[in-house]
Amino acid sequence: MKDLGDLLTCPVPLAGNATVLLAHGGGGRLTRDLVERLFLPRFRNRWLEPLHDGALLDRPGSRIAFTADSYVVRPLFFPGGDIGSLAVHGAVNDLAMCGARPLGLSAAFILEEGLAMETLERVAGSMAQAARLAGVPIVAGDTKVVDRGRCEGLYVSVSGVGVVAPGVTISPLAARPGDAVLLSGPVGSHGIAVLSAREELGLELEVESDSAPLWSLVERMLGVSKQIRCLRDPTRGGLATVLLEIAAASGVGMRIEERAIPVEDGVRAACEVLGLDPLYVACEGRLCAVAAPAVADPLLEAMRAHPLGRRSARIGEVVAGEAGEVTLRTVIGGERALDLLSGEQLPRIC
Amino acid sequence: MKDLGDLLTCPVPLAGNATVLLAHGGGGRLTRDLVERLFLPRFRNRWLEPLHDGALLDRPGSRIAFTADSYVVRPLFFPGGDIGSLAVHGAVNDLAMCGARPLGLSAAFILEEGLAMETLERVAGSMAQAARLAGVPIVAGDTKVVDRGRCEGLYVSVSGVGVVAPGVTISPLAARPGDAVLLSGPVGSHGIAVLSAREELGLELEVESDSAPLWSLVERMLGVSKQIRCLRDPTRGGLATVLLEIAAASGVGMRIEERAIPVEDGVRAACEVLGLDPLYVACEGRLCAVAAPAVADPLLEAMRAHPLGRRSARIGEVVAGEAGEVTLRTVIGGERALDLLSGEQLPRIC
Repeated sequence: MKDLGDLLTCPVPLAGNATVLLAHGGGGRLTRDLVERLFLPRFRNRWLEPLHDGALLDRPGSRIAFTADSYVVRPLFFPGGDIGSLAVHGAVNDLAMCGARPLGLSAAFILEEGLAMETLERVAGSMAQAARLAGVPIVAGDTKVVDRGRCEGLYVSVSGVGVVAPGVTISPLAARPGDAVLLSGPVGSHGIAVLSAREELGLELEVESDSAPLWSLVERMLGVSKQIRCLRDPTRGGLATVLLEIAAASGVGMRIEERAIPVEDGVRAACEVLGLDPLYVACEGRLCAVAAPAVADPLLEAMRAHPLGRRSARIGEVVAGEAGEVTLRTVIGGERALDLLSGEQLPRIC
Repeated sequence: MKDLGDLLTCPVPLAGNATVLLAHGGGGRLTRDLVERLFLPRFRNRWLEPLHDGALLDRPGSRIAFTADSYVVRPLFFPGGDIGSLAVHGAVNDLAMCGARPLGLSAAFILEEGLAMETLERVAGSMAQAARLAGVPIVAGDTKVVDRGRCEGLYVSVSGVGVVAPGVTISPLAARPGDAVLLSGPVGSHGIAVLSAREELGLELEVESDSAPLWSLVERMLGVSKQIRCLRDPTRGGLATVLLEIAAASGVGMRIEERAIPVEDGVRAACEVLGLDPLYVACEGRLCAVAAPAVADPLLEAMRAHPLGRRSARIGEVVAGEAGEVTLRTVIGGERALDLLSGEQLPRIC
């Protein structure tokens, strides 16, 4: 990330927020504030600083990718997945977004006293199956139990280690004017599927989470070209946030065609009812790629030939405009600038 | 681990426990049950199976160690440390127990809505300082926020990646009859220090946690000899549990001299008042080593020359007896067999 030099020498408290808000976990502006103003000034180092989905640890002869996420999704089970499969997919995808083949995962559980053992068995079984399907072993783990009422059933943190093949250099800092912006499928299904599982909302939707492990798709893409510049999976904050972050990190602008962005009908309908913008709703099995224009078409073809990329689309291009400025040409032909959400649109969807 | 073959083909629910108990997180028999009967049958793979403190991922040309733990210690701050420094030390030590030089850590936070930002700053600052002193960068992170009352301030999961030098093969399965058992310093200080910070107990103790990063000590030991067979840090469940686990995993017995085990006066006094056995109380900056008899004395000398090993002692030996049988010769000259605790002696001390 850029423009943090002043924070390096002067760690400051977060202006205006004396306590943690739910929105600090929402993936939008407040999350970025927390990272940039609280964590980065303290933890600063060259591996952390790119704020990529994972860190690259260079070793003589190999590049190791390393990532970690906590999962607190509510409820634990939702259409198309559960906290266990979601956590495995999340770790695999963070590694894949670094261009890394997953080598192993760890799972650190925080369990609430009184959790039904059957629930834990179901989650562990789901993690095991997801790991098997993704072709990556769970190689380390930990279990802590907290008193009743000090956790909601279970939380799990999954970290992952992967290896990056020689010649692959994927970074959120690498987008250049003229590059194509590709998207691997419809957005927002995960967030809406989780919402639909919250009984208190009384939603009756037929939306399934898109949660899926993306390494095999990325592997196929890398087989077409190593000239993929950036990869990101639009999780918390959705596609809009990922585009804004890439544009800011790379110091470029983007022009995006709303019409080109696939959205499932059920997701669109739910978003209308709930007053949500699908561009800000999380996916857990989609990726956004920035690639040199010369390789965009063959990449798109390879993506569409993969089961997880059948509805891939070219959704826009990188432009030389102001750093971090992402302009959306809307379906009705207007233009609007995308912006980070400051509040929390959908708490605890991952 | 051994004797799990039957579980491989037939994952069964945990007999007798339909819900998660606090003791499932205590590091004793119930924790082992949970791991062996619930997680292992589902996650089984050759990297996970040794149940070491970390997993070793072999890559051509390098061996990567990988570990993960969650921290839920209560209260967040205690004499000699806090949840942040503890988490960094825990990850560094798990890597060190694999003989691995730490390369990078990740930190995944679960924050409670309403947590004072100042508390988070203090914890992050402490993690940063602990990481700096241990010489390892925090390279990846994540933040999730849960609703008020769904967490107790903050929990953090830290995972670590390290690299094992050629020729180093440390494993809990490697103890052999005749080997010496070495301990790097007094036991139980961490657990008692955390208890002393719980205001509801009204304890007035002058005990500081031993929480410390052990890689530099291990590095010095490896400089003396690569014939170190096992390394473990006695955390949850304390020294007794670690000895029992090594003996069971290696299929050997042990004879331990209680008199040789250093215990701080304050820890001994507190344990008497509280009815605790210091051999079962957690350390977070001590290690137990099993080494070939020929290298035991030079190793002990090197350990004593290191600031974190000044009170190192040879506390016993590995014998050919029944697998997993650890006999303690008590101070008064009797003998007793150590056993895993089934209950939870000290909940949430890490």
